[in-house]
Amino acid sequence: METTQKTGLVVSAHSADFVWRAGGAIALHSARGYAVTVVCLSYGERGESAKLWRQPGMTLERVKAEREKEARAAAEILGVADIQFWDLGDYPITLNDDALFRLVDVYRAIHPAFMLTHSKRDIYNHDHPAVSDFAQNARITAQAHGHNPGQKVLGAPPVFLFEPHQPEQCDWKPNVLLDIGPVWEKKRAAIECMAGQEHLWEYYTRVALQRGAQAARNSDKAIKYGEGYEAVFPHVTETLA
Amino acid sequence: METTQKTGLVVSAHSADFVWRAGGAIALHSARGYAVTVVCLSYGERGESAKLWRQPGMTLERVKAEREKEARAAAEILGVADIQFWDLGDYPITLNDDALFRLVDVYRAIHPAFMLTHSKRDIYNHDHPAVSDFAQNARITAQAHGHNPGQKVLGAPPVFLFEPHQPEQCDWKPNVLLDIGPVWEKKRAAIECMAGQEHLWEYYTRVALQRGAQAARNSDKAIKYGEGYEAVFPHVTETLA
Amino acid sequence: METTQKTGLVVSAHSADFVWRAGGAIALHSARGYAVTVVCLSYGERGESAKLWRQPGMTLERVKAEREKEARAAAEILGVADIQFWDLGDYPITLNDDALFRLVDVYRAIHPAFMLTHSKRDIYNHDHPAVSDFAQNARITAQAHGHNPGQKVLGAPPVFLFEPHQPEQCDWKPNVLLDIGPVWEKKRAAIECMAGQEHLWEYYTRVALQRGAQAARNSDKAIKYGEGYEAVFPHVTETLA
Amino acid sequence: METTQKTGLVVSAHSADFVWRAGGAIALHSARGYAVTVVCLSYGERGESAKLWRQPGMTLERVKAEREKEARAAAEILGVADIQFWDLGDYPITLNDDALFRLVDVYRAIHPAFMLTHSKRDIYNHDHPAVSDFAQNARITAQAHGHNPGQKVLGAPPVFLFEPHQPEQCDWKPNVLLDIGPVWEKKRAAIECMAGQEHLWEYYTRVALQRGAQAARNSDKAIKYGEGYEAVFPHVTETLA
Amino acid sequence: METTQKTGLVVSAHSADFVWRAGGAIALHSARGYAVTVVCLSYGERGESAKLWRQPGMTLERVKAEREKEARAAAEILGVADIQFWDLGDYPITLNDDALFRLVDVYRAIHPAFMLTHSKRDIYNHDHPAVSDFAQNARITAQAHGHNPGQKVLGAPPVFLFEPHQPEQCDWKPNVLLDIGPVWEKKRAAIECMAGQEHLWEYYTRVALQRGAQAARNSDKAIKYGEGYEAVFPHVTETLA
Amino acid sequence: METTQKTGLVVSAHSADFVWRAGGAIALHSARGYAVTVVCLSYGERGESAKLWRQPGMTLERVKAEREKEARAAAEILGVADIQFWDLGDYPITLNDDALFRLVDVYRAIHPAFMLTHSKRDIYNHDHPAVSDFAQNARITAQAHGHNPGQKVLGAPPVFLFEPHQPEQCDWKPNVLLDIGPVWEKKRAAIECMAGQEHLWEYYTRVALQRGAQAARNSDKAIKYGEGYEAVFPHVTETLA
Repeated sequence: METTQKTGLVVSAHSADFVWRAGGAIALHSARGYAVTVVCLSYGERGESAKLWRQPGMTLERVKAEREKEARAAAEILGVADIQFWDLGDYPITLNDDALFRLVDVYRAIHPAFMLTHSKRDIYNHDHPAVSDFAQNARITAQAHGHNPGQKVLGAPPVFLFEPHQPEQCDWKPNVLLDIGPVWEKKRAAIECMAGQEHLWEYYTRVALQRGAQAARNSDKAIKYGEGYEAVFPHVTETLA
Repeated sequence: METTQKTGLVVSAHSADFVWRAGGAIALHSARGYAVTVVCLSYGERGESAKLWRQPGMTLERVKAEREKEARAAAEILGVADIQFWDLGDYPITLNDDALFRLVDVYRAIHPAFMLTHSKRDIYNHDHPAVSDFAQNARITAQAHGHNPGQKVLGAPPVFLFEPHQPEQCDWKPNVLLDIGPVWEKKRAAIECMAGQEHLWEYYTRVALQRGAQAARNSDKAIKYGEGYEAVFPHVTETLA
Repeated sequence: METTQKTGLVVSAHSADFVWRAGGAIALHSARGYAVTVVCLSYGERGESAKLWRQPGMTLERVKAEREKEARAAAEILGVADIQFWDLGDYPITLNDDALFRLVDVYRAIHPAFMLTHSKRDIYNHDHPAVSDFAQNARITAQAHGHNPGQKVLGAPPVFLFEPHQPEQCDWKPNVLLDIGPVWEKKRAAIECMAGQEHLWEYYTRVALQRGAQAARNSDKAIKYGEGYEAVFPHVTETLA
Repeated sequence: METTQKTGLVVSAHSADFVWRAGGAIALHSARGYAVTVVCLSYGERGESAKLWRQPGMTLERVKAEREKEARAAAEILGVADIQFWDLGDYPITLNDDALFRLVDVYRAIHPAFMLTHSKRDIYNHDHPAVSDFAQNARITAQAHGHNPGQKVLGAPPVFLFEPHQPEQCDWKPNVLLDIGPVWEKKRAAIECMAGQEHLWEYYTRVALQRGAQAARNSDKAIKYGEGYEAVFPHVTETLA
Repeated sequence: METTQKTGLVVSAHSADFVWRAGGAIALHSARGYAVTVVCLSYGERGESAKLWRQPGMTLERVKAEREKEARAAAEILGVADIQFWDLGDYPITLNDDALFRLVDVYRAIHPAFMLTHSKRDIYNHDHPAVSDFAQNARITAQAHGHNPGQKVLGAPPVFLFEPHQPEQCDWKPNVLLDIGPVWEKKRAAIECMAGQEHLWEYYTRVALQRGAQAARNSDKAIKYGEGYEAVFPHVTETLA
Repeated sequence: METTQKTGLVVSAHSADFVWRAGGAIALHSARGYAVTVVCLSYGERGESAKLWRQPGMTLERVKAEREKEARAAAEILGVADIQFWDLGDYPITLNDDALFRLVDVYRAIHPAFMLTHSKRDIYNHDHPAVSDFAQNARITAQAHGHNPGQKVLGAPPVFLFEPHQPEQCDWKPNVLLDIGPVWEKKRAAIECMAGQEHLWEYYTRVALQRGAQAARNSDKAIKYGEGYEAVFPHVTETLA
């Protein structure tokens, strides 16, 4: 099946990151027929669930369950083909070789046309850069002919890094601006599934408006909502226009 | 006419730069129907014509005439629609407001879909960064509604910076790799018009092969010859695949 | 008089820049008794007045008059003590030695406790970095004992650089976040004086909200609106808490 | 008790680092009533005790004992409220999850108003950058609501990075200069407790004089001795003057 | 023996890296009487042996054996005094404390006059930066007086970083250009031992020609073949000419 | 004469810069038989002569005369072969094409084996970066075959940039450390000729001691006094040891 349908891969440190940071890209490509796989390495159960922890009698398992429910609802709205929860723990996240080879298997299974993950640096978040390094390490391992010989090796899918929370502090530069206008309503709806982080709904709506205005300014197109990404690899092209 | 045909603009400090550094892009887009304008701000008559100066009795005017002849021959091979020689002097180049507004007029006349010029820094060449700054200044002035009101203002054509001679020393990073395989023979023929700089023919052939190999490595495509560019502005796009 | 009242200096390339980029800082310090001088080096009459130029029969002089009127209204709301219009032209701006020494005179006249101006780089605007360099050059000249000997030389007022339109593209990093909550209503009112650039009102409101949210995140304080600045010089202090 | 007294935290890779690099800051804040906790993750017994190892019959345990004695003497002079020796080993240091959570406990116990630790990079020292990353990871974990729910989570104390031995080689930039003149005598006395590294006494005295001269130059104040720090986070403020 | 003969150390992630990236430096110094030790941490058996894996019935052990044979042949041509294969695995490589102390032992055994290893960053290769960090960590540990007290501690041999495959993408800057003309034939012969990577023979020949041309341009010398390195530490010298 | 004696060139913005920043290099090379030419583009009469201006009745001409006297005395101690005062003005310095071609003539006259000048950036000084750019522009122009054809063109002398006053703030990195121990007494004596800037004597003595300590640390040599430089071009070499 993976030989005929185009695919994309999103590696998310915590179970809400893919929504805030890549919801537009996911919805856009899903709408165009891409089967997008989202791997949530943790639930963000310890470090990104403040509101849930303020409820009396809260437990780690209940937080995880709530977070998974929210993420599944968002994924459905965005048209995600496959969402996986690996429950590796957070703050700090635990990224061992088993997890690495499991992610290599995902690359080999779907041969994504692109991969999205976190920024290289984040002074506010220790898990995000660790996941970025990990996801890129897995991509390179999936390219190795000697890893599970006989499998088709991975090619060179481009990698795009999510916008971090305070981009300038993280030395992240958006060299790609994606027009997400056609799917904005879906992204906003997915965002609203994140009941535990309601304070971020308007924040990320403003981010989308600012990136949209910037995309318009760089292209003469009437773009209203955008997502910014930092491309890791050079853009190989047949035209400059 | 400029409203119907697509156009491109190349701003070259010296009369051979457009060949070594952008010959592939010019030939590619010309072949696709773009009318490419090349502005040679100087002939490189003082600083980039060593071989000619070794001839006995050489004069500045003869060097310029020879350089123009070579550049015109190369431009014809590459399919350049319009090549202009502004004779502003070199080493150092003189870039005053008259020249600036003249370049603004070019932008306004052709409304290029893209603009190519030199890198921001070059420790081996003082004219190249000056021209890069100048050409971008003119682009911004061409966007001003109060400059020659009534004319159609320039939009936001992307700007790509040429590969300098020793790229790492110039902090130049090729974030765009262009497949120039289909027009390589033309570029090589244009390079060979530069009789005065024969020692560079093989150098720039090797550059093309290395950038081609890198383009292949970043794309899984069978690319043999490439040109590298540094995009100044973020890439606005509707897809990441 | 300048020996008793504390002062601040804002050097603005175009007549609206001080509003979008430093309106909060101006209003805050004015409210605290600082006499803030704003120098508008040009009106932005050519490059930042698109809406005015769309009116039939518009002339350069009418644009300038309109821009001055708007800027004066905004300045009054913000509590600016002195606003000056130097009419040096824009796109490109003309910054000669006469202008430099005139700005030196301003420094020497008011001995500002801080100076605000544009970012060092801006790929969308050629005037802004030129003004940043110019204003810092004037500051250094004002420190020279041999310039107008007998005058009291300038000390070392800190310099803070405005947020440019697309900060990451300009390598601008906000290492100072100013809480402008107490004066936000004034800044918004001043912004609304810029009738010719209404499309930017909401853009800069969102900028203030994002910088406010970031300031809150970096301080545990309930900050809603902020302005970001890049400090040029190290922060000299007697405490780290 | 920690709710009423203000506190600071210093995380030192080896047992002398807090003296050379932060002795002034510690003495200043201690004198102002801050209870400063210093965590020495190792003794620097292998890599920073050359003089001791030159004594005949020296053993690892004796080196550690000697280093602890020196550090305790220096801490007393500086007014340190609590000095802890975690004995994690050095060259290389071993920083596992147990140590991480132990440091999280310290953050939660004292809720420091500021945290000081090593620079992000150091080409001469492998432990220092590892400790910087570790101490910041612990700070972020201490902010997580799901870590030991019920405890008060950590806020956002600013983090300042020590001056490394050869600052330019480590890409460390002192954006904060602290006037340590009032406590210089204490810092010098603490430095002289480091009998095993006498060759560094004058070196670090000169560092203090250079940073002092620079602080004076940036502030118009009569500052003689300084310490430089690199602030990790933006400075949130209510005034620019 | 090591006290009288000068030595060099090359730490290679995979068994062919020392040939492509440092073959010239090795041959040059060997020819001058240096005993050069090459440590191949892995065979590159999984990630850099694509051609071998295309042979039917290939096994990991056969790949390793073939790679070792090739590397030994190349080492002999280059005049390597000692080549070691540590078989730590690749893609990803496993670098634990045992390996670290083993490398410390090598430093202590030979006291190299220089050390060569991989670049700090490489977006195409996860093992190379890990090895660079590891080899520098071992060098620092070898300088520690408390590590195996009684042994002579390591001094401060300069470290030079290999050219990575796509240098600009790896932020690698060649601040040292080595003239390898006198040994080019040996390097080419060593390269041709790498039967499994024949597609790289011409690629690295072109690299040598480009670095040679650049070395000539920076020195006025007639240099044809070069190798580029990034020096980690400042160059201590008694002359600038 | 210039064909037989080796030469060096120092381009100094103000008449004392060559002493503080390059006095060691000048004395070292002079002692070894190099004829060192120092070009003082201005006297620093306005911006770097505070003490002189505090004398009653001081005039610009008297300041210049005093500065020239001091510089000549220092030059004699350092063994300078030729010191020139171009009196171009300072704060700001005026660098026009006449001055450029005059400096080209100097390059062509002496064919220096190395050139020393200011750093690329300096937030405290506007003249220094301007001079650095100017001196490098002249060097490139001197390489142009079409400039004064018939003269021998300049080769590629290495360029080293002086240490600025606050190096980290100027993004200056000392990748070359010069042992100036053998001539330290001369440098100190030359420094003491600068009667007008006595407050800097100890400052620059400490700089020499710190750079010396760093040079020792990077080389295992017993170096006490050093000067740091930033090399602009890659170091072309035949050996890494």
